[in-house]
Amino acid sequence: MNEYTVKGIAIDVEGNLPVVTLESSDGKLLPIWIGGPEAYSIGLALKEYEPPRPMTHDLIVSIIQGFKSKLKRVVISGLSEGTFYALLHFEQNGELIVIDARPSDSIAIALRTKAPIFVEDSIPIFEPDDPKTAVLKERLKEIRPEDIGF
Amino acid sequence: MNEYTVKGIAIDVEGNLPVVTLESSDGKLLPIWIGGPEAYSIGLALKEYEPPRPMTHDLIVSIIQGFKSKLKRVVISGLSEGTFYALLHFEQNGELIVIDARPSDSIAIALRTKAPIFVEDSIPIFEPDDPKTAVLKERLKEIRPEDIGF
Repeated sequence: MNEYTVKGIAIDVEGNLPVVTLESSDGKLLPIWIGGPEAYSIGLALKEYEPPRPMTHDLIVSIIQGFKSKLKRVVISGLSEGTFYALLHFEQNGELIVIDARPSDSIAIALRTKAPIFVEDSIPIFEPDDPKTAVLKERLKEIRPEDIGF
Repeated sequence: MNEYTVKGIAIDVEGNLPVVTLESSDGKLLPIWIGGPEAYSIGLALKEYEPPRPMTHDLIVSIIQGFKSKLKRVVISGLSEGTFYALLHFEQNGELIVIDARPSDSIAIALRTKAPIFVEDSIPIFEPDDPKTAVLKERLKEIRPEDIGF
């Protein structure tokens, strides 16, 4: 299991779908195709934008804090039939609470709580020197949250 | 403070904005203008649609349950400069935990947990026999979540 950080949000020009890209310190990439609202929320968190009223993922952070819990880590845990899975590892009163979630929500919360993101070894990633990685990069057009907008 | 139920989601034809309408048992109406993703989420909950993977508000319900807490009620608590405010009242180990939220998120969670929704008396509502209520109803065009879509 390796730690990844959020490289950014992008649009996959094939299919016009939002993507969040995770990157390891040695340049491995993991693109995850996500929904528009979640991409927007991740984009706002990357810009450290503080909205006047809590957006949905800000509310989740309020709830975690209200329950005196802490998000210890996010684990991108699996890939099945094109769908990525994630787990949120919370700590509350010394107890570990693990909750199933989509990677998009998990990443949106991790960015807001500065929790680390790990990727299970079983998940196929893009190696820096693999020709497929160059093809992937051509497909992904980096965007700002305001390019999505609701 | 009176209890309201969710009448449905609609589009306000003036401005093309999503609206969730709350209704009291004696026919008072409270329209709240909300975001598209939240209207979609409320619409799915009204249809009791169970998605294959947890949507963001389903994740909030998982977190509440994971923390062995319960949403006791939602209170639409205020209106200031056109913005509605809400409070989530949670119970955990006999303790009341109150968290500030937008009405849209609050309603999306209330529907999924069957928590009651209350509206503070200070909030202006639409009386059944007020001519303004008929005007409001003309502005609101009921929609299904698939009419929003992402």
